Amino acid sequence: MRRWQLAGVGINALKLNAAPVPTPGHGEVLVRVKAAAINARDLGILAGHYPNKPGVVPFSDGAGIIEAVGPGVSGFVAGEAVMGCFYPFWESGPADENNRTSLGCNLDGMLAEYALVPASGLVLKPATLDFAEAATLPCAALTAWTALYTEGGLRPGQTVLVQGTGGVAIFALQLAKLSHARVILLSGSDAKLERAKALGADVGINYRETPEWSAAVLDATGGKGADIVVEVGGQDTLAQSLGSVRVGGRISVVGVLSGLVAPVPVPPILFRHVTLSGITVGHRADFRALAAAVDAAGLKPVIDRRFAFEDAVSAFAELPTGKHFGKLVVEVDRS
Amino acid sequence: MRRWQLAGVGINALKLNAAPVPTPGHGEVLVRVKAAAINARDLGILAGHYPNKPGVVPFSDGAGIIEAVGPGVSGFVAGEAVMGCFYPFWESGPADENNRTSLGCNLDGMLAEYALVPASGLVLKPATLDFAEAATLPCAALTAWTALYTEGGLRPGQTVLVQGTGGVAIFALQLAKLSHARVILLSGSDAKLERAKALGADVGINYRETPEWSAAVLDATGGKGADIVVEVGGQDTLAQSLGSVRVGGRISVVGVLSGLVAPVPVPPILFRHVTLSGITVGHRADFRALAAAVDAAGLKPVIDRRFAFEDAVSAFAELPTGKHFGKLVVEVDRS
Amino acid sequence: MRRWQLAGVGINALKLNAAPVPTPGHGEVLVRVKAAAINARDLGILAGHYPNKPGVVPFSDGAGIIEAVGPGVSGFVAGEAVMGCFYPFWESGPADENNRTSLGCNLDGMLAEYALVPASGLVLKPATLDFAEAATLPCAALTAWTALYTEGGLRPGQTVLVQGTGGVAIFALQLAKLSHARVILLSGSDAKLERAKALGADVGINYRETPEWSAAVLDATGGKGADIVVEVGGQDTLAQSLGSVRVGGRISVVGVLSGLVAPVPVPPILFRHVTLSGITVGHRADFRALAAAVDAAGLKPVIDRRFAFEDAVSAFAELPTGKHFGKLVVEVDRS
Amino acid sequence: MRRWQLAGVGINALKLNAAPVPTPGHGEVLVRVKAAAINARDLGILAGHYPNKPGVVPFSDGAGIIEAVGPGVSGFVAGEAVMGCFYPFWESGPADENNRTSLGCNLDGMLAEYALVPASGLVLKPATLDFAEAATLPCAALTAWTALYTEGGLRPGQTVLVQGTGGVAIFALQLAKLSHARVILLSGSDAKLERAKALGADVGINYRETPEWSAAVLDATGGKGADIVVEVGGQDTLAQSLGSVRVGGRISVVGVLSGLVAPVPVPPILFRHVTLSGITVGHRADFRALAAAVDAAGLKPVIDRRFAFEDAVSAFAELPTGKHFGKLVVEVDRS
Repeated sequence: MRRWQLAGVGINALKLNAAPVPTPGHGEVLVRVKAAAINARDLGILAGHYPNKPGVVPFSDGAGIIEAVGPGVSGFVAGEAVMGCFYPFWESGPADENNRTSLGCNLDGMLAEYALVPASGLVLKPATLDFAEAATLPCAALTAWTALYTEGGLRPGQTVLVQGTGGVAIFALQLAKLSHARVILLSGSDAKLERAKALGADVGINYRETPEWSAAVLDATGGKGADIVVEVGGQDTLAQSLGSVRVGGRISVVGVLSGLVAPVPVPPILFRHVTLSGITVGHRADFRALAAAVDAAGLKPVIDRRFAFEDAVSAFAELPTGKHFGKLVVEVDRS
Repeated sequence: MRRWQLAGVGINALKLNAAPVPTPGHGEVLVRVKAAAINARDLGILAGHYPNKPGVVPFSDGAGIIEAVGPGVSGFVAGEAVMGCFYPFWESGPADENNRTSLGCNLDGMLAEYALVPASGLVLKPATLDFAEAATLPCAALTAWTALYTEGGLRPGQTVLVQGTGGVAIFALQLAKLSHARVILLSGSDAKLERAKALGADVGINYRETPEWSAAVLDATGGKGADIVVEVGGQDTLAQSLGSVRVGGRISVVGVLSGLVAPVPVPPILFRHVTLSGITVGHRADFRALAAAVDAAGLKPVIDRRFAFEDAVSAFAELPTGKHFGKLVVEVDRS
Repeated sequence: MRRWQLAGVGINALKLNAAPVPTPGHGEVLVRVKAAAINARDLGILAGHYPNKPGVVPFSDGAGIIEAVGPGVSGFVAGEAVMGCFYPFWESGPADENNRTSLGCNLDGMLAEYALVPASGLVLKPATLDFAEAATLPCAALTAWTALYTEGGLRPGQTVLVQGTGGVAIFALQLAKLSHARVILLSGSDAKLERAKALGADVGINYRETPEWSAAVLDATGGKGADIVVEVGGQDTLAQSLGSVRVGGRISVVGVLSGLVAPVPVPPILFRHVTLSGITVGHRADFRALAAAVDAAGLKPVIDRRFAFEDAVSAFAELPTGKHFGKLVVEVDRS
Repeated sequence: MRRWQLAGVGINALKLNAAPVPTPGHGEVLVRVKAAAINARDLGILAGHYPNKPGVVPFSDGAGIIEAVGPGVSGFVAGEAVMGCFYPFWESGPADENNRTSLGCNLDGMLAEYALVPASGLVLKPATLDFAEAATLPCAALTAWTALYTEGGLRPGQTVLVQGTGGVAIFALQLAKLSHARVILLSGSDAKLERAKALGADVGINYRETPEWSAAVLDATGGKGADIVVEVGGQDTLAQSLGSVRVGGRISVVGVLSGLVAPVPVPPILFRHVTLSGITVGHRADFRALAAAVDAAGLKPVIDRRFAFEDAVSAFAELPTGKHFGKLVVEVDRS
């Protein structure tokens, strides 16, 4: 079988290697991968910002068919269609220091024709999605779900501010609309704002035309502010996000696109009783809940581009351009 | 002005009396009532089961237009369209012994041409509803909202079991569908089940044909059980509800239609880690949230019959027949 | 090695058998048991009320020293002092249908000289307790912890009603006093009430002298009622518990000592907005938290009697007498 | 009567004026103030950083005896000993834009011989405290309570990091110890660290000797980090706080002592799944709960200095020196 491995730092360290198809050990499941998806974290790993295992197979996200199960595995059988979990040992409950091991970083990931995954790190594929669509869920969709529902307690009629049109952002838009929330979406492109509106966004703000966009968010909410802000930026956005959130509201930090140290004005956090919460994807119980919601509501992930397995390097090159709207997928096996 | 008053116990104690239009005192608002709605509790008050004030004006539920505001009232002005709050002194937070005063029981209610309501007991009418529709929300819709969202934490893709087709039940169905939950609905009438499906119910169970309906609920949920049961009955239903709820699930008790003492099998509560929670309507912060959700989602309350103000006694007579599907409304002012 | 096994139903089905010391398989840990403790559930298993595995080794509760670890086990090494978890596959988060496997029922338990336990079902022994004391924690103490803290959200200054002086009850008393809660304790014995007061109980009520004890609880709380009731009874107590809890309060059902079907008056659940919640012990993350609290506070479990390993049958005979105050322990290895 | 008023900006704008004793209007209570207490916010108001009413009577915090109640007031009678609420219209539930009016800022405060307070802004004085002690609770103690219990969900055995020895910090120490939490306390003074240890602090860290104190916190917690950080600083402390908190932990921001814009490293918020939450004091339901806890546990506020009413200006001068340990109180009426 073939698998991509990261032998060092940078895009040139990505190599497509041959390897024998492994045999699942105790508690392991062998998955024949059909599709995999890239996330911003994969760029961070490529850049050497994470303590990844040497020669790691990239990508936390993928979906495929169970080829074989190892000893001691119950609950899964060969032939079932599954997705991998970002954190294969985080079953439920709060994030803690015991559940931080992740696919595509500490453990080999899904950018391979076959992947060995702990049985505790699999969830059945939603029946209404194909493999490429399902491959987009493990990191981006679950992050949005955790931000909105598990930590945000989103209810119908609340207002969500979504930043941009990347993977997490578009899932945040779609998942918020599942509950009839109002969604305000930021983008630097009017064309992308139009696409977002077609997906249900109620208000679009072009941050290039309106760099002080917190005022526009207040306008759109009767001066009150958004209930939940899904913050993907950091340095360039956090101060505006603080000006956009309602008293007692919540900013869910899901990314650091724009720099690592943000000058944060502390008084609005304090005086507006704001909660700022870092979101690290989510746990398997929520991933199951998300998969059930996808099926119940018929939610369709938005895939911007599909790359061939041999061309996976192009996905790494494409993601930082920020041209995409939704997810980039690598089709590992198009059969 | 004219108002209905309850001068004793039983339907013959209902009298339509004349009274001067009152002047709002400090913190009070005078509302010209356009429509009012009856709830099961109003039958209990009629029967003398509640410690109501003598000669109380019935009905917690109503909507109208502000005629005048008393001294010290801020946030409301004459001409605004409003609904009354079931508990006018319960602003937010948990139920406690300090927020139990209710309209139509301890305080005069809405079955009158003019009502004096504490300013803390008003919420703006949803713009998308007319007065008759808005009049149905204060008790039944807010009860369903509290059960599903505030206490139940309902998320997309979960399963809700709804019992019957009365006011709370139909709101529970509609509000659960707002979040793309799956709804299983019980009724004794196939015709009502069809109407419920037209409103979005995913599964209908006729409890006359299937008296051991917990088995049918398990069948419909892959053996797992419902996440939330909205329990309206009591004696006749609680044991079946306990058999219908998933491990770790929740039964929200919103009514006692079928008797006051239920023989409850304790082991399933214990061994299935079930939470059984009595729901007393809800607070004003949630009523505002509900009103926002109604507007955002375009939810339309289901009104079964409308009665003339002079004929309000007929609403008391109709409700116990159980023939209705949704709410019974008294149109106080049809202009 | 020797182990007790339950070969059928009833006390005569308990047999002390010889068996080879097992070798831990993948993910398993071999524990040399020093002490084990009995709980009411063990009587239910003895009576055939549970779907236990044939020939099960009884007792969910025990503590000992790791003798060996199987392949794939990380985080534990030979020589460490540990306690078993009631549910060895419930790491954290809500109870659900996937985490119900328990020691001493579906899996062999701790009433043996050596026990094989999944590594996910062990927690380090508190340093401040000996093995007999630690053996009392897995079921009774964790149940009380879950009821008071995880589900009850107990805070200093609240009032807890504790029923009786069995294992869960005495832990509920001690754990509630850790947070400076007020504790009202019921017992049928004045001598036991005195002992409970010595442990910190603020108010004692003799339910034999005061069978309508809900009135006494209201008296002791200024008419308001208790914030949390730890309900161990069922048929004989639930109605009184409902009369003892405050508006918006919580009854945690931790046992069914007095009968399986309780005639429950539904109106007080509904009209007082009461939550009635079945508690099934708890998860490993909470067990770790409990162990940390025991060490931090110097809490000492109350052991009523200690039995020799060979005499474990006497623990089964003693428990139903209800004479005990606190826990009954079997000392497996007194060395 | 005499009252202090702030007629402009700066300490010279503080004037001790004479005024007639007011008569309580509808819903108001006249309190004969016995003691009042200063908080850091009062310095911000003095400096003109808040939108205070012109000529405001300073101080949110005070305790006294009810002299008279206005029309429409129930639940209070003359002669009762009470404390004022920081937010007299925040009864319970989340912070929102409707409950932000505060004493000593938008409304006249407690630095007067008589104060008019809305009846919704009073709580009974704990029986175990004198008036000076009770006067310290409304802002500082309730802030610590909200941070630890309402938002932090503190449980016995958890670890709390407290910064400094000001009013909120010392209450955070004392309130955390009420639940047998472990407390790590920072100070720049070894003498203050010794005093904190005498009050129960488990670990003291001198931040002058150990400016990179996050490493010391990790050392003291087995590398794990604190469960809750009570952050009083801002610019100088936030980065260290982020390095001191456990994965999934919480930083409660209760003050901005050291500058208004903090350079916040976003990655640790994100990758450690940290929640950073601004705390604005708290609501009346929690203030009642806190008062009950104070009585139940016998907690004694730490008063560093007491000033005469005529000398209240000295309290404003003393607070910024940072020499104090605990609270500064103005004794309005020493009789």
